[in-house]
Amino acid sequence: MSEAGSDEAGGDSAGGEKVQSKLSAASIGPDWTKVRCPCCVSDRVEPLVLVKLGEKVGPETKRWIIRVIGASQKDGGAALLAHPGEDASGDIIVVSAPRCTLLRATEELGLCKIYRNGDMEAFSYSDRDNFKDSDNMEEFLTLAECQYIVKYELDGLRAQRDLRIPGLPDSCTLHNRDNIWQKLRSFGVIVDTFPLHNPDKLKNLSEAWYSGNQLAQPLDSVNEYFGSSVAFYFSFLDFYTWSLLPPALLGLTITYFSGEVQKEMVESVSGPRATDIEGDSEPPVSGHMLQAVFSMLWSTVVMELWKRRSSSLSYRWGTLHLAERFAEPRPGFHGDLGVNPVTGRVEPLFPEWQRDLRMALVSVPVVGLFLGLVVLGMMCFYWAEAQVQHLHNDWDSLLSQTLLYMPSVLHIVYTNMLATVYKTVAQSLTEYENHREESAFQNHLTAKVLVFTFFNYFAVLFHIAFFKQDVPLLRKRLASLLIVTQLINQVTEVVIPFLVDRFISAPHRTQSEDDPQEEKFRNQGTLPTFPGLFAEYIELLVQFGYLSLFSCVFPLTAVLLLLNNLTEIRSDAYKICKLFRKPFSPPAANMGVWQIAFEVLSFVSVVSNCWLLLLSPRLQDMFQEGGMSSTNVLLLAVLVEHVLILIKVIMAVLIPDEPDWIRKKREHIEYSSMQALRQQKLQSEES
Amino acid sequence: MSEAGSDEAGGDSAGGEKVQSKLSAASIGPDWTKVRCPCCVSDRVEPLVLVKLGEKVGPETKRWIIRVIGASQKDGGAALLAHPGEDASGDIIVVSAPRCTLLRATEELGLCKIYRNGDMEAFSYSDRDNFKDSDNMEEFLTLAECQYIVKYELDGLRAQRDLRIPGLPDSCTLHNRDNIWQKLRSFGVIVDTFPLHNPDKLKNLSEAWYSGNQLAQPLDSVNEYFGSSVAFYFSFLDFYTWSLLPPALLGLTITYFSGEVQKEMVESVSGPRATDIEGDSEPPVSGHMLQAVFSMLWSTVVMELWKRRSSSLSYRWGTLHLAERFAEPRPGFHGDLGVNPVTGRVEPLFPEWQRDLRMALVSVPVVGLFLGLVVLGMMCFYWAEAQVQHLHNDWDSLLSQTLLYMPSVLHIVYTNMLATVYKTVAQSLTEYENHREESAFQNHLTAKVLVFTFFNYFAVLFHIAFFKQDVPLLRKRLASLLIVTQLINQVTEVVIPFLVDRFISAPHRTQSEDDPQEEKFRNQGTLPTFPGLFAEYIELLVQFGYLSLFSCVFPLTAVLLLLNNLTEIRSDAYKICKLFRKPFSPPAANMGVWQIAFEVLSFVSVVSNCWLLLLSPRLQDMFQEGGMSSTNVLLLAVLVEHVLILIKVIMAVLIPDEPDWIRKKREHIEYSSMQALRQQKLQSEES
Repeated sequence: MSEAGSDEAGGDSAGGEKVQSKLSAASIGPDWTKVRCPCCVSDRVEPLVLVKLGEKVGPETKRWIIRVIGASQKDGGAALLAHPGEDASGDIIVVSAPRCTLLRATEELGLCKIYRNGDMEAFSYSDRDNFKDSDNMEEFLTLAECQYIVKYELDGLRAQRDLRIPGLPDSCTLHNRDNIWQKLRSFGVIVDTFPLHNPDKLKNLSEAWYSGNQLAQPLDSVNEYFGSSVAFYFSFLDFYTWSLLPPALLGLTITYFSGEVQKEMVESVSGPRATDIEGDSEPPVSGHMLQAVFSMLWSTVVMELWKRRSSSLSYRWGTLHLAERFAEPRPGFHGDLGVNPVTGRVEPLFPEWQRDLRMALVSVPVVGLFLGLVVLGMMCFYWAEAQVQHLHNDWDSLLSQTLLYMPSVLHIVYTNMLATVYKTVAQSLTEYENHREESAFQNHLTAKVLVFTFFNYFAVLFHIAFFKQDVPLLRKRLASLLIVTQLINQVTEVVIPFLVDRFISAPHRTQSEDDPQEEKFRNQGTLPTFPGLFAEYIELLVQFGYLSLFSCVFPLTAVLLLLNNLTEIRSDAYKICKLFRKPFSPPAANMGVWQIAFEVLSFVSVVSNCWLLLLSPRLQDMFQEGGMSSTNVLLLAVLVEHVLILIKVIMAVLIPDEPDWIRKKREHIEYSSMQALRQQKLQSEES
Repeated sequence: MSEAGSDEAGGDSAGGEKVQSKLSAASIGPDWTKVRCPCCVSDRVEPLVLVKLGEKVGPETKRWIIRVIGASQKDGGAALLAHPGEDASGDIIVVSAPRCTLLRATEELGLCKIYRNGDMEAFSYSDRDNFKDSDNMEEFLTLAECQYIVKYELDGLRAQRDLRIPGLPDSCTLHNRDNIWQKLRSFGVIVDTFPLHNPDKLKNLSEAWYSGNQLAQPLDSVNEYFGSSVAFYFSFLDFYTWSLLPPALLGLTITYFSGEVQKEMVESVSGPRATDIEGDSEPPVSGHMLQAVFSMLWSTVVMELWKRRSSSLSYRWGTLHLAERFAEPRPGFHGDLGVNPVTGRVEPLFPEWQRDLRMALVSVPVVGLFLGLVVLGMMCFYWAEAQVQHLHNDWDSLLSQTLLYMPSVLHIVYTNMLATVYKTVAQSLTEYENHREESAFQNHLTAKVLVFTFFNYFAVLFHIAFFKQDVPLLRKRLASLLIVTQLINQVTEVVIPFLVDRFISAPHRTQSEDDPQEEKFRNQGTLPTFPGLFAEYIELLVQFGYLSLFSCVFPLTAVLLLLNNLTEIRSDAYKICKLFRKPFSPPAANMGVWQIAFEVLSFVSVVSNCWLLLLSPRLQDMFQEGGMSSTNVLLLAVLVEHVLILIKVIMAVLIPDEPDWIRKKREHIEYSSMQALRQQKLQSEES
């Protein structure tokens, strides 16, 4: 298959070899499209991405698509390799990428690679020979990067003139500059585009990741196989889990030594009992306060240290200088054609002020409306609950007893419906805002959903803390949330997909070693799509919220979270490896908007902790004994809050966001590019 | 004088011509040092900087210094032009700079200049011919830039080997890599180095600036003549003064319509009177509240808009991409010689962690100690005042009456002594921190003095507001500070120097048109050194503090400040033009640490305003009528405060720090330097 007689391409991956021979053995007529560029000729082509066509797509349409995929970029193609599968009229196309396309896209995306002097440098196509391993794509680029590049090229396909697609009705024509892939999707020609698993690499990864009892995650391999956005999630999960150790130890110590919390807990669960044993020889600084102040400062330190870790990971994974701003806009972006003032290329432009206007006049009010609906729902719930309780007290029949559950049920239904509607609305709002870069799109979408989800999760807790001012109820609620919700999450996230996979999907997917390669590819398509990391991040954020906002009322929070996360790491890893289709993962330099969400939470925590301390009955008693009026106590709390916020701001400013050595590397790159610019101006003049 | 037969150098500045002919007419033997570079030969040399030597410096030392100044950079010289004055053994050296040195330094400092396409681009020496006016230094560089470059080159002089300076005792030797200029200063050889005024330009500038009734300041000419750091001060003063209009109008409206404030003012000054006319038909939202909320939001909007203006000014003045980090370290910087990991040059290096350690273990405790001393002083003052009052009440003699003034006098003396000591301490601390860049040094020094000064100015007001909780006293104090202090400031800043200049210094400086040029230069040296912009900025900051922190108790603050600033602009301009020696002014991209100080103040203002509102007797009454307990009122105030801070944070995030067009220019420069880096790597490979 494909051209023989390659000049380079060391064959160190036995897996790739096998895959390739399988596909070639089975294929009789069809073959990989030809590459024109001599340096790209290789005797092994690794299948990267599978394109699934609609059922009714005729062979001439398929041939046209394969031609477009294979055509060079100046002819309006994607300059990729396409394989029609074993049957030329089958409904799949396997896509791979030749070396030149990969390298050019690496430059365009602004990925950094190891230069011959061992440093990371922004990759340059014209200087490719000086980068380490640039002749061996399997070493040079990670699998995830290769697959993302294929998606990037396919998504970037644009019609160069008005044309009719062979085999499709006349209504399905492409206009000049139309995004081909998007149009084909909307015509139903392309059903799915997803990256293919590499069974051998996956096996190695899963063994190193979750099969044994290892404590450390193989983050570099995760980055290599799943890409940096996934790797960043797991790195953060890892970092965050370890950083739970200090608060967990503190929580255990407090619980063990003071005994006070158990008493209060017992009290809160079984109602107030005899309190005669209280108040005899308790220490003046309660575990409450210690826990609160500690968790307030801890959250800032953790987030600052994570920023440092994040920047060194991003250097390590070559995503420190992503050039997304300078690359092609995302496929959904539209606007009038014009010259980009930054890059000088002709591309669709959309004025910034118009986007701002849309956000201010459309997005913000709509999001506000939904937040209002959440609050309204909560208020209706409380009102209905009071009404039903009242009714029950008056009548006390079986009907009224069942009615007691109605408000909760209705509220849950309402909340879920609202969340579903909101997700669609947020998607269309962000689409309407018309962001140029994929990351900007994702960040705005995430921010919208995040605000809503956060409201949804914490509104009740805040209501209990600030309006009902009922610490025991808050503690009960928090404990139940921590234990029950986490359990439910683990079950719905892993156990159910596992059972579905094992007993419903798997029987349809009888797979044996002798199956043709194509069948295996097709089987991957039957797995459900990976739902993205949003839910995972939200879970962490909510955890972090429980811990930093409310943990002072329940010191064992960190312990429970630590235990949960140790299993979470494994179950998340298992999930992404086995239970879902492999996701595309764009190169990422950090956690994006999640970083900000965690930091905001860490500041809100000061307000809530100070408030909870104020409510704590022990402290109230203490102050009253000390003869302070409630106004003075409140003033003291406000003062403490301001001082703590000040300390947190100062800590955040003083801890540098990147380690010293990364700063030096970055400054060096800035310096050399400045020097280079000066040189180049001269040279472009001379030539 | 100097070489004739220049090929370029259009002579459009009659002033320069005259200056040059004067100096040459009087000089018989000595002349400007020769330049070797043919492109630098010019028939006009503008005297830029005057070096004043010590009285006992012999002619051989002077000759040696002139030789060092004139020697090329690879011979360890400064590559400047030196003129020994009319008398070869006199105590001055006039320094100028040839074209090549100026251009090279322009590149090294990272100044942007107009490219042939009309955009601002970072200047490149090798590409000099494509920059507008690069053959005419008087058009290309501003006078201030030329003079700063001379200082930069002189300060950068380093001994290339151990050597003895001719005419000095053996104890005065230079070691390898010693900073020559610093050593010569410490030996007493060089007494002063200051830039020379250009009388014609100065005349034009002062006419456009403060002689007439003009409302707008000629900021570009200020930047041209005095440099960007001075120009940034005046731009901010201008911007800030105009932005006082809205609060001033609001203050006037409130004062006019409500009448309530006058009443309260009258009350507060003459003691509580019959309050029977109060409380009849006052609006529920008092002027107080309006003023407070307005000034809280106003301060954020002003600072955000100023950031935008600041970045466009910095683009306009070519200081957007200063390369200070990549240039030579400041003269006072010391460390072990090593290879700078960023630029690859051999220079003194000082590890970051060591600086951090010094700051944490030395600077912070010492600054804290001084702040403690301020507080201690204030407490002693209050204590002593109470004691003396007590004594006076008991004894009531003439002695006790004079004793009444003792605490104030002692406190003033103590405060002044403390401030003087602190300034010296702050200087040595910052020196000890060993910052590499001049701007970092200045910022750290400013930050230290700022914290102290701020404490000094506001401690009493905060004490009155938060501890004494005495709004009328605060209002009285504020009004007196605003009126009296501003008057005193204007007098001490301008009138006294003016009188000193006119009646004490001027008679010694009888100057006529026929004086030799050298005498005029020498006369400039008799003017006092410009004290720097620190006091000016502090004045603005304190104003801004009065306005944003406390103005809700005295709505006319903004009106008074507006009036004050309109005269301040003129008097500051007059001062810098006439009353002081011309200062060196390094290129600056923004206000540096002052920006942050204003922003911090704007956030502190929320706390203080909410607190003052809470104290306001009108509101207290209102709430009591509404049946709210004092705890609930306090809670409400805390809530309002948090909401306002949130709004301010959101506003600060939403208003972009640079205008859209500047962002595009910046991104374009980033993009082209990225592209250039890729090109250059390849070319350096090929060659």
